[in-house]
Amino acid sequence: MAKDMTLLWGSGSPPCWRVQVVLEEKNLQGYNSKQLGQVSSFSLPAFQHGNLIINESIGICEYLADRFKDQGTKLVPDDYSEKAMMFQRMHEGNSLMMKAGDVIYYNFKVPEAERHESALQRNKEALTVEVKLWEDYLTKLFFFKSPVAAPCNRPLFRRLCEKKYPKLAEYYKNLKTRPSIQKTWPPTWFSPPGLVTLNEI
Amino acid sequence: MAKDMTLLWGSGSPPCWRVQVVLEEKNLQGYNSKQLGQVSSFSLPAFQHGNLIINESIGICEYLADRFKDQGTKLVPDDYSEKAMMFQRMHEGNSLMMKAGDVIYYNFKVPEAERHESALQRNKEALTVEVKLWEDYLTKLFFFKSPVAAPCNRPLFRRLCEKKYPKLAEYYKNLKTRPSIQKTWPPTWFSPPGLVTLNEI
Repeated sequence: MAKDMTLLWGSGSPPCWRVQVVLEEKNLQGYNSKQLGQVSSFSLPAFQHGNLIINESIGICEYLADRFKDQGTKLVPDDYSEKAMMFQRMHEGNSLMMKAGDVIYYNFKVPEAERHESALQRNKEALTVEVKLWEDYLTKLFFFKSPVAAPCNRPLFRRLCEKKYPKLAEYYKNLKTRPSIQKTWPPTWFSPPGLVTLNEI
Repeated sequence: MAKDMTLLWGSGSPPCWRVQVVLEEKNLQGYNSKQLGQVSSFSLPAFQHGNLIINESIGICEYLADRFKDQGTKLVPDDYSEKAMMFQRMHEGNSLMMKAGDVIYYNFKVPEAERHESALQRNKEALTVEVKLWEDYLTKLFFFKSPVAAPCNRPLFRRLCEKKYPKLAEYYKNLKTRPSIQKTWPPTWFSPPGLVTLNEI
Protein backbone atom coordinates (compact mmCIF):
# COMPACT_ATOMS: atom_id res chain seq x y z
CA MET A 1 0.00 0.00 0.00
CA ALA A 2 0.97 3.60 -0.42
CA LYS A 3 1.58 4.53 3.20
CA ASP A 4 4.57 6.67 2.25
CA MET A 5 2.35 9.00 0.21
CA THR A 6 0.24 11.94 1.35
CA LEU A 7 -2.27 13.96 -0.64
CA LEU A 8 -3.87 17.22 0.50
CA TRP A 9 -6.92 17.92 -1.60
CA GLY A 10 -10.02 20.10 -1.84
CA SER A 11 -13.44 18.75 -2.74
CA GLY A 12 -14.63 19.85 -6.17
CA SER A 13 -11.21 20.97 -7.30
CA PRO A 14 -10.53 19.44 -10.73
CA PRO A 15 -6.72 19.39 -10.29
CA CYS A 16 -7.05 17.61 -6.95
CA TRP A 17 -9.53 15.12 -8.31
CA ARG A 18 -7.27 14.31 -11.25
CA VAL A 19 -4.57 13.18 -8.83
CA GLN A 20 -7.00 11.14 -6.73
CA VAL A 21 -8.20 9.32 -9.84
CA VAL A 22 -4.68 8.52 -10.99
CA LEU A 23 -3.75 7.21 -7.54
CA GLU A 24 -6.74 4.83 -7.79
CA GLU A 25 -5.90 3.77 -11.35
CA LYS A 26 -2.37 2.96 -10.21
CA ASN A 27 -3.64 0.88 -7.28
CA LEU A 28 -2.03 3.26 -4.82
CA GLN A 29 -4.80 3.01 -2.27
CA GLY A 30 -3.94 3.49 1.36
CA TYR A 31 -2.17 6.82 0.99
CA ASN A 32 -2.68 9.49 3.65
CA SER A 33 -5.60 11.52 2.38
CA LYS A 34 -6.29 14.91 3.96
CA GLN A 35 -9.26 16.96 2.83
CA LEU A 36 -8.93 20.73 3.04
CA GLY A 37 -11.80 23.04 4.08
CA GLN A 38 -15.22 23.40 2.51
CA VAL A 39 -14.74 26.18 -0.05
CA SER A 40 -12.06 24.50 -2.00
CA SER A 41 -12.91 24.44 -5.69
CA PHE A 42 -9.81 26.53 -6.26
CA SER A 43 -7.56 24.27 -4.20
CA LEU A 44 -4.42 22.88 -5.69
CA PRO A 45 -3.21 19.49 -4.57
CA ALA A 46 -0.12 19.01 -2.44
CA PHE A 47 1.45 15.61 -2.84
CA GLN A 48 4.29 14.04 -0.94
CA HIS A 49 6.02 10.73 -1.63
CA GLY A 50 8.89 10.14 0.74
CA ASN A 51 10.96 13.31 0.56
CA LEU A 52 9.50 14.39 -2.75
CA ILE A 53 6.90 17.17 -2.78
CA ILE A 54 4.97 18.13 -5.91
CA ASN A 55 1.94 20.38 -6.27
CA GLU A 56 1.37 20.67 -10.01
CA SER A 57 -1.46 18.23 -10.64
CA ILE A 58 -0.39 17.09 -14.09
CA GLY A 59 3.19 16.88 -12.85
CA ILE A 60 2.02 14.55 -10.08
CA CYS A 61 0.14 12.43 -12.63
CA GLU A 62 3.17 12.26 -14.92
CA TYR A 63 5.32 11.24 -11.96
CA LEU A 64 2.90 8.50 -10.87
CA ALA A 65 2.43 7.21 -14.42
CA ASP A 66 6.22 7.03 -14.81
CA ARG A 67 7.22 5.75 -11.39
CA PHE A 68 4.51 3.07 -11.32
CA LYS A 69 4.37 2.34 -15.02
CA ASP A 70 4.00 -1.41 -14.59
CA GLN A 71 1.33 -1.18 -11.92
CA GLY A 72 -2.43 -0.75 -12.33
CA THR A 73 -3.87 0.89 -15.43
CA LYS A 74 -1.39 1.69 -18.19
CA LEU A 75 -1.70 5.45 -18.55
CA VAL A 76 1.02 6.29 -21.04
CA PRO A 77 1.18 4.51 -24.41
CA ASP A 78 4.46 2.86 -25.47
CA ASP A 79 4.18 3.96 -29.08
CA TYR A 80 6.02 7.23 -29.63
CA SER A 81 3.30 8.76 -31.82
CA GLU A 82 0.50 7.83 -29.46
CA LYS A 83 2.52 9.13 -26.57
CA ALA A 84 3.17 12.38 -28.44
CA MET A 85 -0.55 12.80 -28.99
CA MET A 86 -1.10 12.22 -25.29
CA PHE A 87 1.43 14.99 -24.52
CA GLN A 88 -0.39 17.21 -27.02
CA ARG A 89 -3.83 16.77 -25.45
CA MET A 90 -2.45 16.90 -21.92
CA HIS A 91 -0.95 20.35 -22.47
CA GLU A 92 -3.83 21.47 -24.64
CA GLY A 93 -6.18 20.59 -21.81
CA ASN A 94 -4.79 23.59 -19.95
CA SER A 95 -6.38 25.84 -22.56
CA LEU A 96 -9.74 24.22 -22.04
CA MET A 97 -9.42 24.55 -18.28
CA MET A 98 -8.31 28.16 -18.49
CA LYS A 99 -11.10 29.16 -20.85
CA ALA A 100 -13.69 27.32 -18.77
CA GLY A 101 -12.38 29.13 -15.70
CA ASP A 102 -12.64 32.49 -17.45
CA VAL A 103 -16.37 31.86 -17.79
CA ILE A 104 -17.26 29.83 -14.69
CA TYR A 105 -15.24 31.95 -12.27
CA TYR A 106 -15.68 35.32 -13.98
CA ASN A 107 -17.53 36.90 -11.06
CA PHE A 108 -15.17 35.35 -8.55
CA LYS A 109 -12.04 36.53 -10.30
CA VAL A 110 -13.05 39.97 -11.54
CA PRO A 111 -14.03 42.64 -8.98
CA GLU A 112 -17.46 44.10 -9.61
CA ALA A 113 -16.18 47.50 -10.74
CA GLU A 114 -14.08 45.86 -13.45
CA ARG A 115 -16.71 43.55 -14.94
CA HIS A 116 -17.91 44.00 -18.50
CA GLU A 117 -20.61 42.03 -20.25
CA SER A 118 -18.54 42.28 -23.43
CA ALA A 119 -15.58 40.61 -21.73
CA LEU A 120 -17.68 37.74 -20.39
CA GLN A 121 -19.24 37.33 -23.81
CA ARG A 122 -15.81 37.11 -25.42
CA ASN A 123 -14.76 34.54 -22.85
CA LYS A 124 -17.85 32.48 -23.68
CA GLU A 125 -17.09 32.60 -27.36
CA ALA A 126 -13.51 31.49 -26.77
CA LEU A 127 -14.75 28.61 -24.61
CA THR A 128 -17.29 27.56 -27.24
CA VAL A 129 -14.55 27.34 -29.87
CA GLU A 130 -12.45 25.25 -27.49
CA VAL A 131 -15.27 22.90 -26.50
CA LYS A 132 -16.07 22.24 -30.15
CA LEU A 133 -12.46 21.23 -30.69
CA TRP A 134 -12.70 18.70 -27.89
CA GLU A 135 -15.99 17.34 -29.16
CA ASP A 136 -14.14 16.69 -32.40
CA TYR A 137 -11.11 15.13 -30.71
CA LEU A 138 -13.37 12.60 -29.07
CA THR A 139 -14.23 11.08 -32.42
CA LYS A 140 -10.73 9.75 -32.83
CA LEU A 141 -8.83 9.73 -29.62
CA PHE A 142 -7.29 6.76 -27.92
CA PHE A 143 -6.25 9.32 -25.36
CA PHE A 144 -9.62 9.27 -23.72
CA LYS A 145 -9.14 5.69 -22.73
CA SER A 146 -6.70 7.20 -20.29
CA PRO A 147 -8.13 9.17 -17.41
CA VAL A 148 -4.96 11.13 -16.72
CA ALA A 149 -6.20 14.47 -17.97
CA ALA A 150 -9.82 13.55 -18.12
CA PRO A 151 -11.71 14.57 -15.02
CA CYS A 152 -10.28 18.05 -15.15
CA ASN A 153 -13.11 18.99 -17.45
CA ARG A 154 -15.90 17.58 -15.40
CA PRO A 155 -17.66 20.79 -14.25
CA LEU A 156 -17.88 21.66 -17.88
CA PHE A 157 -19.07 18.28 -19.07
CA ARG A 158 -21.82 18.00 -16.52
CA ARG A 159 -23.47 21.13 -17.83
CA LEU A 160 -22.76 20.91 -21.49
CA CYS A 161 -22.83 17.49 -22.74
CA GLU A 162 -26.42 16.40 -22.60
CA LYS A 163 -27.42 19.21 -24.87
CA LYS A 164 -25.10 19.98 -27.73
CA TYR A 165 -22.09 17.77 -27.43
CA PRO A 166 -23.03 14.12 -27.78
CA LYS A 167 -19.46 12.82 -27.83
CA LEU A 168 -18.55 14.69 -24.68
CA ALA A 169 -21.75 13.29 -23.17
CA GLU A 170 -20.81 9.73 -24.06
CA TYR A 171 -17.29 10.22 -22.79
CA TYR A 172 -18.54 11.66 -19.52
CA LYS A 173 -21.03 8.82 -19.11
CA ASN A 174 -18.32 6.24 -19.67
CA LEU A 175 -15.98 7.94 -17.27
CA LYS A 176 -18.57 7.74 -14.53
CA THR A 177 -18.57 3.95 -14.72
CA ARG A 178 -14.88 3.73 -13.76
CA PRO A 179 -14.29 2.56 -10.19
CA SER A 180 -11.54 5.17 -9.77
CA ILE A 181 -14.02 7.93 -10.53
CA GLN A 182 -16.76 6.52 -8.35
CA LYS A 183 -14.44 6.01 -5.43
CA THR A 184 -13.08 9.56 -5.52
CA TRP A 185 -16.28 11.43 -6.34
CA PRO A 186 -15.96 14.85 -4.62
CA PRO A 187 -18.19 14.90 -1.54
CA THR A 188 -19.10 18.53 -2.07
CA TRP A 189 -19.44 19.33 -5.72
CA PHE A 190 -19.14 22.81 -7.11
CA SER A 191 -22.57 24.18 -8.09
CA PRO A 192 -22.71 27.94 -7.71
CA PRO A 193 -25.14 30.03 -9.73
CA GLY A 194 -22.15 31.00 -11.88
CA LEU A 195 -22.46 27.76 -13.78
CA VAL A 196 -25.59 28.91 -15.56
CA THR A 197 -23.23 31.00 -17.65
CA LEU A 198 -22.33 27.76 -19.36
CA ASN A 199 -25.81 27.55 -20.85
CA GLU A 200 -24.70 29.67 -23.77
CA ILE A 201 -21.64 27.60 -24.60
CA MET B 1 19.70 14.76 -40.29
CA ALA B 2 16.13 15.62 -39.50
CA LYS B 3 14.79 15.98 -43.03
CA ASP B 4 11.52 14.29 -42.06
CA MET B 5 10.73 17.08 -39.61
CA THR B 6 9.12 20.46 -40.25
CA LEU B 7 8.70 23.36 -37.86
CA LEU B 8 6.57 26.45 -38.51
CA TRP B 9 7.58 29.19 -36.13
CA GLY B 10 7.20 32.91 -35.42
CA SER B 11 10.11 35.13 -34.44
CA GLY B 12 9.95 36.29 -30.84
CA SER B 13 7.39 33.70 -29.81
CA PRO B 14 8.62 31.98 -26.64
CA PRO B 15 6.79 28.69 -27.35
CA CYS B 16 8.28 28.51 -30.84
CA TRP B 17 11.74 29.33 -29.61
CA ARG B 18 11.56 26.63 -26.94
CA VAL B 19 11.07 24.02 -29.67
CA GLN B 20 13.89 25.41 -31.81
CA VAL B 21 16.26 25.24 -28.86
CA VAL B 22 15.33 21.64 -28.05
CA LEU B 23 15.80 20.61 -31.70
CA GLU B 24 19.33 22.05 -31.52
CA GLU B 25 20.07 20.40 -28.18
CA LYS B 26 18.99 17.08 -29.65
CA ASN B 27 21.23 17.53 -32.71
CA LEU B 28 18.19 17.56 -34.98
CA GLN B 29 19.57 20.15 -37.34
CA GLY B 30 18.52 20.05 -40.96
CA TYR B 31 14.77 20.07 -40.30
CA ASN B 32 12.51 22.08 -42.59
CA SER B 33 12.25 25.46 -40.91
CA LYS B 34 9.53 27.87 -42.02
CA GLN B 35 9.27 31.28 -40.45
CA LEU B 36 5.81 32.81 -40.24
CA GLY B 37 5.11 36.55 -40.81
CA GLN B 38 6.55 39.52 -38.96
CA VAL B 39 4.06 40.12 -36.14
CA SER B 40 4.38 36.76 -34.58
CA SER B 41 5.08 37.03 -30.88
CA PHE B 42 1.78 35.27 -30.32
CA SER B 43 2.55 32.46 -32.75
CA LEU B 44 2.32 28.89 -31.66
CA PRO B 45 4.61 26.35 -33.25
CA ALA B 46 3.39 23.70 -35.65
CA PHE B 47 5.62 20.66 -35.76
CA GLN B 48 5.47 17.65 -38.02
CA HIS B 49 7.56 14.49 -37.84
CA GLY B 50 6.51 11.99 -40.48
CA ASN B 51 2.75 11.68 -40.06
CA LEU B 52 2.74 13.07 -36.56
CA ILE B 53 1.60 16.66 -36.02
CA ILE B 54 1.92 18.45 -32.67
CA ASN B 55 1.44 22.10 -31.82
CA GLU B 56 1.73 22.30 -28.07
CA SER B 57 5.26 23.52 -27.52
CA ILE B 58 5.98 21.63 -24.31
CA GLY B 59 4.33 18.56 -25.82
CA ILE B 60 6.75 18.80 -28.74
CA CYS B 61 9.67 19.12 -26.34
CA GLU B 62 8.51 16.14 -24.31
CA TYR B 63 8.16 14.12 -27.50
CA LEU B 64 11.65 15.05 -28.73
CA ALA B 65 13.22 14.43 -25.33
CA ASP B 66 11.58 11.00 -25.22
CA ARG B 67 11.97 9.90 -28.85
CA PHE B 68 15.62 10.98 -29.02
CA LYS B 69 16.55 10.35 -25.43
CA ASP B 70 19.98 8.92 -26.28
CA GLN B 71 20.91 11.68 -28.71
CA GLY B 72 22.41 15.11 -27.98
CA THR B 73 21.88 16.77 -24.61
CA LYS B 74 20.17 14.69 -21.95
CA LEU B 75 17.05 16.70 -21.15
CA VAL B 76 15.17 14.43 -18.77
CA PRO B 77 16.89 13.04 -15.65
CA ASP B 78 16.80 9.29 -15.03
CA ASP B 79 16.21 9.64 -11.31
CA TYR B 80 12.51 9.55 -10.50
CA SER B 81 12.65 12.38 -7.97
CA GLU B 82 14.66 14.66 -10.23
CA LYS B 83 12.34 13.86 -13.09
CA ALA B 84 9.34 14.62 -10.90
CA MET B 85 10.81 18.01 -10.04
CA MET B 86 11.32 18.64 -13.74
CA PHE B 87 7.63 17.85 -14.35
CA GLN B 88 6.75 20.19 -11.49
CA ARG B 89 8.70 23.17 -12.88
CA MET B 90 7.68 22.43 -16.44
CA HIS B 91 3.98 22.70 -15.60
CA GLU B 92 4.54 25.49 -13.11
CA GLY B 93 6.26 27.46 -15.87
CA ASN B 94 2.84 27.89 -17.45
CA SER B 95 1.81 30.03 -14.48
CA LEU B 96 4.82 32.25 -14.95
CA MET B 97 4.12 32.58 -18.65
CA MET B 98 0.45 33.30 -18.11
CA LYS B 99 1.07 35.92 -15.46
CA ALA B 100 3.79 37.54 -17.55
CA GLY B 101 1.38 37.63 -20.49
CA ASP B 102 -1.32 39.23 -18.34
CA VAL B 103 1.06 42.16 -17.82
CA ILE B 104 3.05 42.33 -21.07
CA TYR B 105 0.06 41.87 -23.36
CA TYR B 106 -2.54 43.65 -21.25
CA ASN B 107 -3.22 46.35 -23.82
CA PHE B 108 -3.18 43.84 -26.65
CA LYS B 109 -5.61 41.49 -25.00
CA VAL B 110 -8.04 43.86 -23.30
CA PRO B 111 -10.07 46.27 -25.46
CA GLU B 112 -9.63 49.89 -24.42
CA ALA B 113 -13.14 50.26 -23.01
CA GLU B 114 -12.55 47.34 -20.65
CA ARG B 115 -9.17 48.36 -19.28
CA HIS B 116 -8.74 49.19 -15.59
CA GLU B 117 -5.58 50.40 -13.91
CA SER B 118 -6.58 48.36 -10.87
CA ALA B 119 -6.67 45.17 -12.95
CA LEU B 120 -3.25 45.79 -14.46
CA GLN B 121 -1.90 46.56 -11.02
CA ARG B 122 -3.26 43.28 -9.69
CA ASN B 123 -1.69 41.43 -12.59
CA LYS B 124 1.65 43.05 -11.81
CA GLU B 125 1.42 42.03 -8.19
CA ALA B 126 0.62 38.44 -9.16
CA LEU B 127 3.58 38.41 -11.53
CA THR B 128 5.90 39.81 -8.88
CA VAL B 129 4.95 37.02 -6.50
CA GLU B 130 5.60 34.47 -9.24
CA VAL B 131 8.95 35.93 -10.29
CA LYS B 132 10.14 35.89 -6.70
CA LEU B 133 9.32 32.19 -6.54
CA TRP B 134 11.48 31.53 -9.59
CA GLU B 135 14.33 33.60 -8.23
CA ASP B 136 14.21 31.30 -5.23
CA TYR B 137 14.00 28.11 -7.31
CA LEU B 138 17.21 29.07 -9.06
CA THR B 139 19.14 28.74 -5.84
CA LYS B 140 18.69 25.01 -5.84
CA LEU B 141 17.57 23.71 -9.13
CA PHE B 142 19.29 21.16 -11.28
CA PHE B 143 16.36 21.73 -13.57
CA PHE B 144 17.90 24.82 -15.00
CA LYS B 145 20.71 22.82 -16.42
CA SER B 146 18.06 21.66 -18.84
CA PRO B 147 16.86 24.18 -21.38
CA VAL B 148 13.55 22.43 -22.06
CA ALA B 149 11.34 24.94 -20.34
CA ALA B 150 13.88 27.67 -20.05
CA PRO B 151 13.69 30.16 -22.86
CA CYS B 152 9.98 30.54 -22.44
CA ASN B 153 10.69 33.17 -19.85
CA ARG B 154 13.13 35.18 -21.81
CA PRO B 155 11.11 38.36 -22.49
CA LEU B 156 10.70 38.60 -18.79
CA PHE B 157 14.30 37.88 -17.89
CA ARG B 158 15.70 40.44 -20.27
CA ARG B 159 13.84 43.21 -18.50
CA LEU B 160 13.94 42.07 -14.96
CA CYS B 161 17.06 40.38 -14.09
CA GLU B 162 19.74 43.02 -14.12
CA LYS B 163 17.91 44.92 -11.46
CA LYS B 164 16.33 42.96 -8.70
CA TYR B 165 16.78 39.31 -9.47
CA PRO B 166 20.45 38.37 -9.47
CA LYS B 167 19.86 34.64 -9.83
CA LEU B 168 17.57 35.09 -12.79
CA ALA B 169 20.24 37.38 -14.23
CA GLU B 170 22.95 34.77 -13.83
CA TYR B 171 20.72 32.08 -15.28
CA TYR B 172 19.86 34.22 -18.27
CA LYS B 173 23.52 35.10 -18.83
CA ASN B 174 24.50 31.44 -18.75
CA LEU B 175 21.72 30.48 -21.10
CA LYS B 176 22.96 32.96 -23.65
CA THR B 177 26.26 31.15 -23.92
CA ARG B 178 24.63 27.94 -25.14
CA PRO B 179 25.12 27.27 -28.85
CA SER B 180 21.49 26.17 -29.18
CA ILE B 181 20.33 29.55 -27.93
CA GLN B 182 22.74 31.53 -30.05
CA LYS B 183 21.87 29.63 -33.19
CA THR B 184 18.12 30.10 -32.80
CA TRP B 185 18.10 33.70 -31.51
CA PRO B 186 14.86 35.25 -32.84
CA PRO B 187 15.70 37.58 -35.73
CA THR B 188 13.04 40.04 -34.68
CA TRP B 189 12.76 40.25 -30.96
CA PHE B 190 9.66 41.47 -29.20
CA SER B 191 10.17 45.03 -27.91
CA PRO B 192 6.92 46.96 -27.84
CA PRO B 193 6.38 49.83 -25.42
CA GLY B 194 4.22 47.44 -23.40
CA LEU B 195 7.33 45.96 -21.84
CA VAL B 196 7.94 49.05 -19.74
CA THR B 197 5.11 47.73 -17.61
CA LEU B 198 7.62 45.21 -16.33
CA ASN B 199 9.58 47.97 -14.64
CA GLU B 200 7.40 47.66 -11.57
CA ILE B 201 7.78 43.92 -11.20
